[in-house]
Amino acid sequence: MASSLGRLSGSRVWSAALGRAGRRSRAWSPGLPAGRFCGAPFAARGLGHGPGTGGAGIGGGARRAPWLAAGLAAGLAGVAAASFQHLARAEMVPRTEGASGMLERADELATRCSSFMAPPVTDLSELRARQGDMKTQMELLIMETQAQVCQALAQLDRGASFSVDRWERKEGGGGISCVLQDGQVFEKAGVSVSVVHGTLSEEAIKQMRNRGKVLKMKNGQLPFSAMGVSSVIHPKNPHAPTFHFNYRYFEIEEADGNKQWWFGGGCDLTPTYLNQEDAVHFHKVLKDACDQHDPSLYPKFKKWCDDYFVIKHRGERRGIGGIFFDDLDSPSKEDVFHFVQSCAQAVIPSYIPLVKKHCNDPFTPQEKQWQQLRRGRYVEFNLLYDRGTKFGLYTPGSRVESILMSLPLTARWEYMHAPSENSKEAELLEVLHHPKDWVH
Amino acid sequence: MASSLGRLSGSRVWSAALGRAGRRSRAWSPGLPAGRFCGAPFAARGLGHGPGTGGAGIGGGARRAPWLAAGLAAGLAGVAAASFQHLARAEMVPRTEGASGMLERADELATRCSSFMAPPVTDLSELRARQGDMKTQMELLIMETQAQVCQALAQLDRGASFSVDRWERKEGGGGISCVLQDGQVFEKAGVSVSVVHGTLSEEAIKQMRNRGKVLKMKNGQLPFSAMGVSSVIHPKNPHAPTFHFNYRYFEIEEADGNKQWWFGGGCDLTPTYLNQEDAVHFHKVLKDACDQHDPSLYPKFKKWCDDYFVIKHRGERRGIGGIFFDDLDSPSKEDVFHFVQSCAQAVIPSYIPLVKKHCNDPFTPQEKQWQQLRRGRYVEFNLLYDRGTKFGLYTPGSRVESILMSLPLTARWEYMHAPSENSKEAELLEVLHHPKDWVH
Repeated sequence: MASSLGRLSGSRVWSAALGRAGRRSRAWSPGLPAGRFCGAPFAARGLGHGPGTGGAGIGGGARRAPWLAAGLAAGLAGVAAASFQHLARAEMVPRTEGASGMLERADELATRCSSFMAPPVTDLSELRARQGDMKTQMELLIMETQAQVCQALAQLDRGASFSVDRWERKEGGGGISCVLQDGQVFEKAGVSVSVVHGTLSEEAIKQMRNRGKVLKMKNGQLPFSAMGVSSVIHPKNPHAPTFHFNYRYFEIEEADGNKQWWFGGGCDLTPTYLNQEDAVHFHKVLKDACDQHDPSLYPKFKKWCDDYFVIKHRGERRGIGGIFFDDLDSPSKEDVFHFVQSCAQAVIPSYIPLVKKHCNDPFTPQEKQWQQLRRGRYVEFNLLYDRGTKFGLYTPGSRVESILMSLPLTARWEYMHAPSENSKEAELLEVLHHPKDWVH
Repeated sequence: MASSLGRLSGSRVWSAALGRAGRRSRAWSPGLPAGRFCGAPFAARGLGHGPGTGGAGIGGGARRAPWLAAGLAAGLAGVAAASFQHLARAEMVPRTEGASGMLERADELATRCSSFMAPPVTDLSELRARQGDMKTQMELLIMETQAQVCQALAQLDRGASFSVDRWERKEGGGGISCVLQDGQVFEKAGVSVSVVHGTLSEEAIKQMRNRGKVLKMKNGQLPFSAMGVSSVIHPKNPHAPTFHFNYRYFEIEEADGNKQWWFGGGCDLTPTYLNQEDAVHFHKVLKDACDQHDPSLYPKFKKWCDDYFVIKHRGERRGIGGIFFDDLDSPSKEDVFHFVQSCAQAVIPSYIPLVKKHCNDPFTPQEKQWQQLRRGRYVEFNLLYDRGTKFGLYTPGSRVESILMSLPLTARWEYMHAPSENSKEAELLEVLHHPKDWVH
């Protein structure tokens, strides 16, 4: 991957601001002339924000990735040729497929990847070699989701710039972190992809066993692959809610060669002030996504979310919930993947309309202060209870900045703060203490 | 204790702002006329800030407690008389002591308690009944330390008011939390005493066993007593350092009736900018306190501090250290107590001169911002690693507000922030990565 980056970093697109070892950073701004970063402007097909637009758009190739814009033809040709040689050598390629068929599929993959924020973590040639594999399907889905969410955010916050950091993990794998900080609309918005593999740390094994997993070690070790997209978005306006989503896939290879796999994830909304209409909209989009697969999913995962995002020592939820699930391994890998795909496609329609609606709402300094206090609670949850944060910080070689980008830009803790009775602040607390059913 | 509070809350001193169940709150301001809250002004004997003043001052009765000022004579007489009756009934009172001797000791205790921020957590009569007991000695020491530190802070921040909250723990015991928030000099300064007892939670037992304690359960339970004074002080000026101290005593009763006991604690300094002179002063005062007892203590506890206050995922210490120790149970209870007493007496002379020196230093918005980022790191340590915070949050019935008063009023997290080379910010980071020996 390093060589691929090297090749691309010579173009006008990659500023190749090399920082610490293994980190490459660039910044792009949606305000720059179209064509510098993408062949098509951002308002492209598949990026609409209405509930109906997320579906067909995924996988659409109308946009060109920043990292593919300059010298695309030459670059892709080189990659395709090299990858074809690799494919031809690989045992797993069906022998019945001719060279022309493979080239066609290779081009499809390259076109699909062209919408991403950066080249996938796994080398294109490897992705091509195992196109039917779930790890490939999931990596493409999380890269696509990252790109679509980033573009939707950039469209809303036109003056802001996204930094895109590509990082490698010494122990195996790496990731791409996109962060927009201190914009007009967003205080901090991070969308991160990670694709890592290696052997599980003792702490991670302990965490998994604690939630009931039976894992047969292989010479005292457990080889794993994990990948996911994770995002936390903190808007500036206290009337626009904070939002989080995360979808991930795990594979563990046990001593007897058996592979355990599961999906996990969810999304939840954390408003500073309660807006009933927003809450209903948010939950309705999630319910629709779940109902496509099984009407029993939404109620189950809604409750799981209410039970998971609890700031235990305060006895309150961090927000008004959403959906949450983990260890999802039935009915089949493909079925669960399609469900997760629907969830990922619901991210933009569930959230972006709420920011659009509220990002210019007037607010008082007192309302801003209440937002800052709620940000403090968000920090408490993330550092004390969040499973993803803990897994990340306990996994050797993890990229701390990508894990902790979920923390808000600013937060506040006041001793013994309590909102006055019947205030709008107390109204929020009431629903954090007693979660509601928003859709039936 | 509730009746004692009720009696005192009728006076001019206690505003008796009753909040939630079990919480009584009042606020005092050092700017108010002398005599409203105390018989003597705050600049009283035993409150000086030079290294030599902390010693003899502890236990001095020149000041009168706010809660004893109004109606002192009548109140004390009532308490003394009632307590005498109680003492006379108690089996543990030596039969050889006459009534007049006991009254004299009762008066001494009442006089000593008169300097406290509030009545001790344990009823005066009970403290009198077990005056030689370590639990009594330690409760008096932590109450005294709280009062002296609060008075020193209030003297520095004349416009600010301290809130004093007294709380009770359903499972046994309670505490007194004193917090000064958003003053001229201090952003947030909390000094909290807690005296709790009951049976240890599973999580607490696990934590103790993890650090090597062998504990014999009694019917699956472990009765315990724990008490301590804990404080975190965040000044506003980025050139004035943040400070933390905590001294605590533990007793556990095992299945065979054996009592395990130990002391723990320490103090450490967290500057936003490194000032060599301050660092040397701070460590020198601590070394002097340790050296009174054994010259091997300071080097050992200095290293322990450097090893303990580590933000592991960042690979940096939270500050420039100080001293830290835990499970200290030799050579004898009395010896360790006297060492802890010296440490408590070093709190004011080690820290207050540094705030005095810097609280009016000019600073830039960039320096303030760097302070806010360091505050963020402080939050990370406290929520992810701090043993006291975890013990507190895992102990059922703990008072969350008293545990989390250590968090700063405001904090900031910037994605990928890195100070420029050779800057003053980088100078601090260097010493956080490579702790130094400040005194030899």
